[in-house]
Amino acid sequence: MQGGRTVTHRVSETDAARIARYRPASGMLSPRFSGVPSFMRLPVLTPAEAAGAIEIGLVGIPFDGATTNRPGARLGPRGVREASTGTRMLNPATGIAPYALAACADLGDVAVNPIDAAETCRRIEAFHAGLRAEGVVPLSIGGDHLVTYPVLRALGQGRPLGLIHIDAHSDTDDSQYEGTRLTHGTPFRRAVEDGVLDPHRSVQIGIRGSVDAADERDWACAQGIRIITMEEALVRGLPEIAAEARAIVGAGPTYLSFDIDALDPAYAPGTGTPEIGGFTSREALHLLRSMRGLDLVGADLVEVAPPLDPSGVTALAGGALAFEILCLLADAVAERRTR
Amino acid sequence: MQGGRTVTHRVSETDAARIARYRPASGMLSPRFSGVPSFMRLPVLTPAEAAGAIEIGLVGIPFDGATTNRPGARLGPRGVREASTGTRMLNPATGIAPYALAACADLGDVAVNPIDAAETCRRIEAFHAGLRAEGVVPLSIGGDHLVTYPVLRALGQGRPLGLIHIDAHSDTDDSQYEGTRLTHGTPFRRAVEDGVLDPHRSVQIGIRGSVDAADERDWACAQGIRIITMEEALVRGLPEIAAEARAIVGAGPTYLSFDIDALDPAYAPGTGTPEIGGFTSREALHLLRSMRGLDLVGADLVEVAPPLDPSGVTALAGGALAFEILCLLADAVAERRTR
Amino acid sequence: MQGGRTVTHRVSETDAARIARYRPASGMLSPRFSGVPSFMRLPVLTPAEAAGAIEIGLVGIPFDGATTNRPGARLGPRGVREASTGTRMLNPATGIAPYALAACADLGDVAVNPIDAAETCRRIEAFHAGLRAEGVVPLSIGGDHLVTYPVLRALGQGRPLGLIHIDAHSDTDDSQYEGTRLTHGTPFRRAVEDGVLDPHRSVQIGIRGSVDAADERDWACAQGIRIITMEEALVRGLPEIAAEARAIVGAGPTYLSFDIDALDPAYAPGTGTPEIGGFTSREALHLLRSMRGLDLVGADLVEVAPPLDPSGVTALAGGALAFEILCLLADAVAERRTR
Amino acid sequence: MQGGRTVTHRVSETDAARIARYRPASGMLSPRFSGVPSFMRLPVLTPAEAAGAIEIGLVGIPFDGATTNRPGARLGPRGVREASTGTRMLNPATGIAPYALAACADLGDVAVNPIDAAETCRRIEAFHAGLRAEGVVPLSIGGDHLVTYPVLRALGQGRPLGLIHIDAHSDTDDSQYEGTRLTHGTPFRRAVEDGVLDPHRSVQIGIRGSVDAADERDWACAQGIRIITMEEALVRGLPEIAAEARAIVGAGPTYLSFDIDALDPAYAPGTGTPEIGGFTSREALHLLRSMRGLDLVGADLVEVAPPLDPSGVTALAGGALAFEILCLLADAVAERRTR
Amino acid sequence: MQGGRTVTHRVSETDAARIARYRPASGMLSPRFSGVPSFMRLPVLTPAEAAGAIEIGLVGIPFDGATTNRPGARLGPRGVREASTGTRMLNPATGIAPYALAACADLGDVAVNPIDAAETCRRIEAFHAGLRAEGVVPLSIGGDHLVTYPVLRALGQGRPLGLIHIDAHSDTDDSQYEGTRLTHGTPFRRAVEDGVLDPHRSVQIGIRGSVDAADERDWACAQGIRIITMEEALVRGLPEIAAEARAIVGAGPTYLSFDIDALDPAYAPGTGTPEIGGFTSREALHLLRSMRGLDLVGADLVEVAPPLDPSGVTALAGGALAFEILCLLADAVAERRTR
Amino acid sequence: MQGGRTVTHRVSETDAARIARYRPASGMLSPRFSGVPSFMRLPVLTPAEAAGAIEIGLVGIPFDGATTNRPGARLGPRGVREASTGTRMLNPATGIAPYALAACADLGDVAVNPIDAAETCRRIEAFHAGLRAEGVVPLSIGGDHLVTYPVLRALGQGRPLGLIHIDAHSDTDDSQYEGTRLTHGTPFRRAVEDGVLDPHRSVQIGIRGSVDAADERDWACAQGIRIITMEEALVRGLPEIAAEARAIVGAGPTYLSFDIDALDPAYAPGTGTPEIGGFTSREALHLLRSMRGLDLVGADLVEVAPPLDPSGVTALAGGALAFEILCLLADAVAERRTR
Repeated sequence: MQGGRTVTHRVSETDAARIARYRPASGMLSPRFSGVPSFMRLPVLTPAEAAGAIEIGLVGIPFDGATTNRPGARLGPRGVREASTGTRMLNPATGIAPYALAACADLGDVAVNPIDAAETCRRIEAFHAGLRAEGVVPLSIGGDHLVTYPVLRALGQGRPLGLIHIDAHSDTDDSQYEGTRLTHGTPFRRAVEDGVLDPHRSVQIGIRGSVDAADERDWACAQGIRIITMEEALVRGLPEIAAEARAIVGAGPTYLSFDIDALDPAYAPGTGTPEIGGFTSREALHLLRSMRGLDLVGADLVEVAPPLDPSGVTALAGGALAFEILCLLADAVAERRTR
Repeated sequence: MQGGRTVTHRVSETDAARIARYRPASGMLSPRFSGVPSFMRLPVLTPAEAAGAIEIGLVGIPFDGATTNRPGARLGPRGVREASTGTRMLNPATGIAPYALAACADLGDVAVNPIDAAETCRRIEAFHAGLRAEGVVPLSIGGDHLVTYPVLRALGQGRPLGLIHIDAHSDTDDSQYEGTRLTHGTPFRRAVEDGVLDPHRSVQIGIRGSVDAADERDWACAQGIRIITMEEALVRGLPEIAAEARAIVGAGPTYLSFDIDALDPAYAPGTGTPEIGGFTSREALHLLRSMRGLDLVGADLVEVAPPLDPSGVTALAGGALAFEILCLLADAVAERRTR
Repeated sequence: MQGGRTVTHRVSETDAARIARYRPASGMLSPRFSGVPSFMRLPVLTPAEAAGAIEIGLVGIPFDGATTNRPGARLGPRGVREASTGTRMLNPATGIAPYALAACADLGDVAVNPIDAAETCRRIEAFHAGLRAEGVVPLSIGGDHLVTYPVLRALGQGRPLGLIHIDAHSDTDDSQYEGTRLTHGTPFRRAVEDGVLDPHRSVQIGIRGSVDAADERDWACAQGIRIITMEEALVRGLPEIAAEARAIVGAGPTYLSFDIDALDPAYAPGTGTPEIGGFTSREALHLLRSMRGLDLVGADLVEVAPPLDPSGVTALAGGALAFEILCLLADAVAERRTR
Repeated sequence: MQGGRTVTHRVSETDAARIARYRPASGMLSPRFSGVPSFMRLPVLTPAEAAGAIEIGLVGIPFDGATTNRPGARLGPRGVREASTGTRMLNPATGIAPYALAACADLGDVAVNPIDAAETCRRIEAFHAGLRAEGVVPLSIGGDHLVTYPVLRALGQGRPLGLIHIDAHSDTDDSQYEGTRLTHGTPFRRAVEDGVLDPHRSVQIGIRGSVDAADERDWACAQGIRIITMEEALVRGLPEIAAEARAIVGAGPTYLSFDIDALDPAYAPGTGTPEIGGFTSREALHLLRSMRGLDLVGADLVEVAPPLDPSGVTALAGGALAFEILCLLADAVAERRTR
Repeated sequence: MQGGRTVTHRVSETDAARIARYRPASGMLSPRFSGVPSFMRLPVLTPAEAAGAIEIGLVGIPFDGATTNRPGARLGPRGVREASTGTRMLNPATGIAPYALAACADLGDVAVNPIDAAETCRRIEAFHAGLRAEGVVPLSIGGDHLVTYPVLRALGQGRPLGLIHIDAHSDTDDSQYEGTRLTHGTPFRRAVEDGVLDPHRSVQIGIRGSVDAADERDWACAQGIRIITMEEALVRGLPEIAAEARAIVGAGPTYLSFDIDALDPAYAPGTGTPEIGGFTSREALHLLRSMRGLDLVGADLVEVAPPLDPSGVTALAGGALAFEILCLLADAVAERRTR
Repeated sequence: MQGGRTVTHRVSETDAARIARYRPASGMLSPRFSGVPSFMRLPVLTPAEAAGAIEIGLVGIPFDGATTNRPGARLGPRGVREASTGTRMLNPATGIAPYALAACADLGDVAVNPIDAAETCRRIEAFHAGLRAEGVVPLSIGGDHLVTYPVLRALGQGRPLGLIHIDAHSDTDDSQYEGTRLTHGTPFRRAVEDGVLDPHRSVQIGIRGSVDAADERDWACAQGIRIITMEEALVRGLPEIAAEARAIVGAGPTYLSFDIDALDPAYAPGTGTPEIGGFTSREALHLLRSMRGLDLVGADLVEVAPPLDPSGVTALAGGALAFEILCLLADAVAERRTR
């Protein structure tokens, strides 16, 4: 992985003019800590305003009502918005200038019901189905990991998606507490059951930590999901892992889900179910940058729980990784525009 | 309010011997920070072991799934247990030595389902109905304020209870998010509707802060609940307020519910819905001590959310106020024993 | 001080319809922690959009470059925005429903230069002069206390204002470090010198703490500014103090400046120059509510420094006191409309 | 209690010139947060340098090895030094300018042994006996409360001292853990036993909280120590309490010991054994100022434990109260100089 | 190192039934944050109850009275208990299911005297000698590192033990403060002197940071202890280091001591004497897993000081590493059962 | 990189005796947390006292008035002083015993003006020019990175210096906010423009993160500054990078500037402009140790902002890295003495 020159040559003049209307406020003119904190200091649009105008929408999903451990991820969108104001225009490591490649905006939050997981899933799905209908690619900021399930339902309806899933946990449990099936430990099982996720084009990276039983991983493997544990990743090295992951999802439409607990607790203490032995932020950057060129149709970053992290490094990592993911999405949007 | 000599004269020798089997570990022999942290360093019993053996059971209810603001109260029982190990045997301000008046134990936590408020209410109700059947008076540690509702259902079944409710909020909303009726803002409305709470013997003290609409308080007042706002309490003074509250609940069976957000955020920052302008801890002690002699059949302390308070003063206050409430309950148990 | 019924009767139907277009997002529909955090969850307008549309503008001034002690107040607008989302529609203690009395909006932040106090003062003055020209009453959220000086220059040009100043410090120093005249300890001296503040209609309440020399207060008194120390306030009581303050500013146009360090550090640890022995939040509410009916033409709340307060109670108090000040401004706006 | 003009008239010109050599660094020339943080930004002298040169020595005693609860007070001197740099030259509330009344310096820390309480007591006693021999009045900053015992041994040898003791705890236990007699709960019992403290001229103010047994207070009362509980103080009011305390210690040589846990945990969370229901900082200032004119021969401030307080308000209060005590000592020194 | 299938085949049916009586509470039935927090949610037994019933006992030793730097490790058992409730049944990385291999329980805390190191050492030794007599293998949670010394005296009496010691410091000082010999910097020197530790079968891994003098390490090396500094470990790599360590201790009875400050402060800020340049948690997991198959007769994890870590990652790492060590002990117990 | 025996053989007996007068207080005699916290527990001298007496002066520069992001670095000297008391006499990894090689002292802080960057630059330059005139090598502790500019002006006057610059940011911006040229993002551009820094002998290591525009790095490269991005460093490895850096600066006089944000936020959260993907503390130690033998004439460590890091690991790293840099400087001083 290495940097390079800014890559904007694929964008036509007409597109560039349109895209330029949606730029973050510049830190060279007003300090990055100033202003109402939207994602990346981008303009805030309603979904209605976004339709036909933008290509990538950042969406907050402040719901943690499916958390079985420590809560707080409902405050994730707020924390990531604030921390993301520290990101800037250009990614020198990859040469990607996302705001020159695609029109981006902050679309506010889905109106969740903190007490009702099923109702909230319906609202999340409807919101994202609306974006899909308007050709807006979502980058959704959780919230606990259950929120990925209704997003997958919206984006994968009619076309089962491939999955790059970076996480400490497989999140393919069946149920907990004798029958509760919508938890932050079950989204990918539900998505496979609903046919919106293609298990054979799905890979989970960084899985680690003790488990209650071997069943969870066994089910996932039986479906065809490829689980790359942290131990395997260390032995084989990230470049080899990344290459295998790319091969698994292939050229089809793919979703990327990044659970912040993939990082080691030293790098992300503010999450509900931390597991020691995780990725460094450098490794996370490497993994994400290795996914360039995939046909990404949506992504999320979940489980940032600011109240559990007094130093703020978790939201900081969340904001910076969201920027990195946004670069991938912008690159994919620009690529699709040329097809 | 003033102190006095230790009051244990009402306890027979037989009772005293029985009661003495359930004493907290002494800080004079092993440090208060040592040992598995049970409530007040009391023995830990299962409900089955408690039946017939003890008279007051401290119960954790680690549920915050009905919180509409910042979460964290699910960690309240853990935080209060830890902080409560700093309390000791005798309350010099009132002369009450609770562990000499009644046999007390930590009964562990109700097995909640963090994702399902209705199911959790059922479990809480069943747990407390069991205690009632065995003559065990509960002091329940939340958890968000919804947990009071199923406790009231268990204790008030067949005998609508009076209520001393100390809080910043009236918690008599009807619903939120277009139809969600089990939230931490609705327990007392539900309890009145279910007939387990007698609104004419109910008083709420310390209510303050901005509101979404005047409806909530109007409903409560229309039912006959007496709301004493913080502003009124300041004008009239706590002694007068306390006297009125005692008169309202009268001699009948009464429940006491203390929401930690009744305290000012300076005294209790670790709670989900703080409101400035609250009680000092000294005033809270005064209010509670003023309730001595009521026929208390149960009590709770709720909304302590440790992750929101890095200094720990909220759990500290929670532990100390729980001790103060325990003194009231022990005194009531001893009093009823003599009847 | 006591509560009462909601007071909206002075607003005509036409005005009410216009005002109703600028309401905060309701916490009954979407949780208060959701959405891009604007002040009070109000709509965000540019100054240009605000002109002719709204009557009260909340303005962030994220500048702490004139701080001689601990910094961090540049993050005050961000912290207060976030905390203010917990306030609601109606103030039961006073009966004021501000959003029914005046059209309010979040106008974003002044584009400060964190390194250049003089340039920043020019920008702040220009921004507020623009608001004044459009008839928009500002409620400005600092930032350190220097920011009050350019606001006073904008609002007091041609009409020296009266002043209600609640603070631990008189902030009437001449200079520091051998000649630096624009510091957070000098705004009111500069404003008197510039003729935009009428010292004979100015009162400072809550002044306390050790000082470097007696000069500062001597100069203020010599100008005619009335200094009510915390010690005097305690001896005489807040009602008497408030009455005197009202008499001093009289019926003329008046500015209100609230430095969060007026509160005791227990209530507001997150500020650069804390002084023990301060007001409780209850007293602050009382003082502010006592100022109802003054002809307030602007106000500010300054010196909230979130990085110095891990529990967040300072920003919480800042948000709640800002709401209380907003109620005063809305009431004054409605009152002036009837004249 | 009220302020007044600066009182320096009692100091002769010769003394004033000598005293002026020991002034804190001025915050008007270099920021208060700059420089090696000595107590009050005073010069740092060795005891040898101090002999014959200064009249009041601030001494750190970083020992918490006798703490039976949460540790951390060993870091108290460091925390109070840092926070005390925020205090200034003149106390407007009392008119005392301490550095104009007496020559003051920071004498560094006693070289404690963190593992050996008995050896540390010997070192503390020797250090303070040396100061007494040179006519230097100590203001000692703990450390846990055991450190008061050897200080009393040094200062009370041959002349049993009177005592103003402000604290949540009586600290007159006999022993703990079956025979350990040097703990932070026993200093005043040991001092009475050793004849260096006159129990009939001793008063304890603010005692509160639960106790293990009634014995501790019974012993103290039997010796003649006057215990004024927090409950009594509230009923009678601070002016009456202060007057009684002054009468108890009378005109004889008196020691003042302030345990930071006298303050409520909202004002001082950073202490090992906090008890809710304590003094506000305003009350503490009032109490201390009421002791002006006593023949104070030494004082201490103990139990500040910075690691237990992430917001720093405890050390802040410690620094400000140490300044207030310093004013009392300087006034007493100046008064004795005129005799 | 890689994972594998669960290894329980060595356990007979009879043993399995007995062992199954001591299982942690399952997080699939009640949330991990619920209940009285015992180590790993295991049953709590008294030593008397444990005798003959269990094979591995988790023991808290809440003593930090021998700490020469920042205190707080006395709260380590409490912090590790709480954090350890997040561990689960099976270790997928190694295939070990500890609760299926050995009967485990939480045995509470040794009743320490926080003020008396020598007396506390006697109590720790007696407690662990009792466990040894009953065939219970201890996993002891400190507390500062001095506590290892009396544990070694109990376990190594009559059979000098080998030692795997992972730490930033050699802890083989002779004395400090001119003669204090029982400090957290001396346990291994004392143990060698007492003949309970075999220096030729002892290895220290991860030693780093500045030192006061070269003597400490010189003494250790002279005795035959092998010190592998962090610098050497980095050059040679962990697999080679681990292999050498295994060879050093050989097949004889061996003790494992893990000081949390072996981790880098980014991974474990909450410890009294942190040194930058330490192990990552991933490396610590690797090192521990590499010790599988040794004849471990006891182990400890020390120096977790929760008050020094507001984010809790230190206790989190402590809990997870304690689980990893428990897996090693359970495997050793099962292995010895087959001999 | 590996350790070795202590290297003091180059110091003559006469020098050794002189040098020995300036030793840190030993932690073997009094605890490291005791005493007024000077850098490394060294003696505190005024610059006048230092002249002719010492060879290396540690200087605090508590200025963050040029910070364009989060402030707090003005409290860096205080935080690093406190944390540095944990360092000791000898560096076993390199064998360097700095206090045996060169006479060192804490020279206090430059008297900055927190509000005036230009005036502060003049004071910093004058202070360091004075040190240079007396042959004292400065190790300066910031403060924000602007402070390096006036230090370079003082040390590079007449002899453009080489530069080892370890940082996340190139800090070669031209200006911000339409014309502000003295910011913490511009020091190296100003220094090159002033001719005190030789760009062809300058290397920047660890640069990473998003940027506002490609211009900044383009300018630096055009001047001849070598920028080694983090991505390049990872690909090539630190040994190769270090060798290249040594070759770039060569044998001429060289300055070393270490911005704490070179570390990953997990290792240094307390800084104003953190960027994920940074160095570990182990890598930073390696890099610094690799610079041994350069002709270092001064160094600094900047951007430690303690209020942004509640756990204190940033100041801890700052103190330990300052010790490591001090070792390099002491080695260079001793080397020059032999020439």
